[in-house]
Amino acid sequence: MAGRAQALKYASDRKLQFLKALEEFIRIPSVSTNPQNKGDMMSASSWVRDKLEAIGMNAQIFPTNGHPVVFAECKKTNSAAPTVLVYGHYDVQPADPLELWNHPPFEPTIHDDYLFGRGASDMKGQVAASLFAVEAILSNGLSPVNIKFMIEGEEEIGSPNLNSFIETHQQLLACDIVLNPDTGMIAADIPTITYALRGMSYFEIRIYGPPHDLHSGLFGGIIHNPAQVLCELIAGMHDSQGHILLPGFYDRVRPLSEEERNSLAKLPMTEQYYINQTGVPALFGEAGFTPIEQIGARPTLDVNGFYSGFIGEGSKTIIPAWAMAKVSMRLVPDQDPNEVTEQLQAYLAAKTPATVRWEILKMHNGPASISNINHPGTNALAKALESVWGKKPVFKREGGSVPVVANMQRILGVESILSGFGLPDDDIHAPNEKLHLPTWNRGIDSIIHFFYNYGENH
Amino acid sequence: MAGRAQALKYASDRKLQFLKALEEFIRIPSVSTNPQNKGDMMSASSWVRDKLEAIGMNAQIFPTNGHPVVFAECKKTNSAAPTVLVYGHYDVQPADPLELWNHPPFEPTIHDDYLFGRGASDMKGQVAASLFAVEAILSNGLSPVNIKFMIEGEEEIGSPNLNSFIETHQQLLACDIVLNPDTGMIAADIPTITYALRGMSYFEIRIYGPPHDLHSGLFGGIIHNPAQVLCELIAGMHDSQGHILLPGFYDRVRPLSEEERNSLAKLPMTEQYYINQTGVPALFGEAGFTPIEQIGARPTLDVNGFYSGFIGEGSKTIIPAWAMAKVSMRLVPDQDPNEVTEQLQAYLAAKTPATVRWEILKMHNGPASISNINHPGTNALAKALESVWGKKPVFKREGGSVPVVANMQRILGVESILSGFGLPDDDIHAPNEKLHLPTWNRGIDSIIHFFYNYGENH
Repeated sequence: MAGRAQALKYASDRKLQFLKALEEFIRIPSVSTNPQNKGDMMSASSWVRDKLEAIGMNAQIFPTNGHPVVFAECKKTNSAAPTVLVYGHYDVQPADPLELWNHPPFEPTIHDDYLFGRGASDMKGQVAASLFAVEAILSNGLSPVNIKFMIEGEEEIGSPNLNSFIETHQQLLACDIVLNPDTGMIAADIPTITYALRGMSYFEIRIYGPPHDLHSGLFGGIIHNPAQVLCELIAGMHDSQGHILLPGFYDRVRPLSEEERNSLAKLPMTEQYYINQTGVPALFGEAGFTPIEQIGARPTLDVNGFYSGFIGEGSKTIIPAWAMAKVSMRLVPDQDPNEVTEQLQAYLAAKTPATVRWEILKMHNGPASISNINHPGTNALAKALESVWGKKPVFKREGGSVPVVANMQRILGVESILSGFGLPDDDIHAPNEKLHLPTWNRGIDSIIHFFYNYGENH
Repeated sequence: MAGRAQALKYASDRKLQFLKALEEFIRIPSVSTNPQNKGDMMSASSWVRDKLEAIGMNAQIFPTNGHPVVFAECKKTNSAAPTVLVYGHYDVQPADPLELWNHPPFEPTIHDDYLFGRGASDMKGQVAASLFAVEAILSNGLSPVNIKFMIEGEEEIGSPNLNSFIETHQQLLACDIVLNPDTGMIAADIPTITYALRGMSYFEIRIYGPPHDLHSGLFGGIIHNPAQVLCELIAGMHDSQGHILLPGFYDRVRPLSEEERNSLAKLPMTEQYYINQTGVPALFGEAGFTPIEQIGARPTLDVNGFYSGFIGEGSKTIIPAWAMAKVSMRLVPDQDPNEVTEQLQAYLAAKTPATVRWEILKMHNGPASISNINHPGTNALAKALESVWGKKPVFKREGGSVPVVANMQRILGVESILSGFGLPDDDIHAPNEKLHLPTWNRGIDSIIHFFYNYGENH
């Protein structure tokens, strides 16, 4: 029996054990944002380290200024074979509001084909799938590729310590490709590879008028109202067709090729699909692009928050002293977050009237990323997904930001293959998060295939 | 010694007692908009009633559907003398933002010539000045005129129950003139009578987008951001010249005569005066009008508050589900507040895109008013101010709104004389509100003179 078939049989025989182990992992409430769960973060990282050791890898825990990183690699390396680094995170989102859960979030519960629990889909299930695939491979000897794991504990809080970990451990982390199973599938019957993510620039814009609130009767008519000025500035950031008007904003935006547009048009994400997903009466976006293009391939500018003056119940007749908006842009290749900052500054400098004073606070900044869909690693995963699902995967762009992808590219010079076996209705970051178990088991098989495919053809 | 001289001497001898009593009044946090202060509203109305009783009037508290009204009248009436109704309010604006006060807002504190505290100027100080003037007059016997007091508790929230109180107590309130000391002076050395006030329409505008906040990465690009929509709607309410663009907004605005423009131009309220008063780098208002005209004779539209999405520290990557702005218009003769409501509704109906839903809450509504400056009561006050300050008062238009003036004219058919002893830099409705005590003491003397003048010449 060839290694691949043996590994697939091993995984098939071990389904129940894999599920029990995943339940054990979910039971640890590793909520990274909550200081009370610090001990649980240690337990979760130890759980990952112990499992990696148990399947035959050399694993260790690296402390950081925050929660630790677990790193592991195969005991024997094959210098002729390529190296895959599996990225994942063992931390989870907070479970509140607790009262909306049908079962306690950290007591995994099975209903029909689903495993319910915080982290089941995002992403303990995905980390475990990768780990069990490697267990299946190593159970019968050597791996077809060199495998490393880097499992962090701070993804849900923005990975504040990961970049410095990567920078100081470049040799340890050296690899040919990163497998990042932190994005999901479009549907249970549509295997999916994500090849582009948007970046982000996040700002707070402040407009200062009078040194304190003024009476709107005594002074209304002679004062430029800072809230009105900020409204005008924000209104001026888009035209009526949804184009962003910051100077030079689109200069570096990589146009979509005809081929890519055709390929995206085949995805089942229609206007109605997004209306159902979001509950809005009608969509609105940049003219000339389809919703999937607007989300995946075009930059956006959104107001995330706005505050000025009196916002309690009732009325207060003031001209506010100042106004504030949180504004963020989702960026696409090849926009440069620093240039975008300059574009916003240039816009504000040009448009803000002399009757007020403006300032911006830079909150955070990360570039977009796009992967080469012809990379041998991507081909290996596409073929793996096809073997398991019986159909070619779709390639999609996603609107969110996974900064680690751009940072691995920048620091280590390696691309990431983005996939995963979560589904859009898994309710990640929400109550009653769940994992579709048949899809999860297919995921384990897919990862086994991926390693063999990549080992054979790299 | 004549009654007038005796009364003036009494007031002069009692300065310290008057000040202590005013401090007592300020200590009651009678914030009418705040449900938690309901008990304080009862205490403040009782304080006023008890004081009026103590100085020898018949006083009583009338419940309303909101906060009560205190009414009082002299025990003996003289049918040959005219009747003056003193209007005032015992409620105050909220004190927030508390952190900007140098002393707690409800612990009155004296620095130099100023008494600091919420309501010191607006208008507990003014109510107390009237009350102490009447105390001084009654201390030596009969009053030269019949005096009534009507002190309400809902002025700062738009007097929602005062009209029905006035309508059902027309006989009780019958009078020849209303003395309303709720407007102030241009400067401590310029006694001032206000002959025109602006009205007000106050609204909360709400824009609803998705049923809950959405992830700005996953959905940014296809959702019309409600905060952005509201910014665009607000931006569209003015042109770049400061004109208001609601349909028909200026149709009923009474133009200023050449004569009145010339008279207003003589007031010392230059552009620099208002820059000094407000601390803004430059004024901004409707093109073609001077600042005093913009404030006194032209309608305005101001954003009083704006809220949407995440406004805490840091960042949250959401498309907010909704946005809200508090927007109020100051109205001038002969604008009709109900028509203005319709104009705003027409604007929103025409301009709001179908991607969101809008609604407005009507907060309050009051018409503008303009008085006959040749009324004998006005002459009596002008002469009183001249006696105390040694110079003739100026007559001005004011930007604030005192809806009760228009309503007393409509329901009771009586005019109001608008004056008061607050100064433009008293910071009413703002932190560190204060009262200039020497001006306040002159104010008490002026009111004493007013009653005697009016009794002698009506």
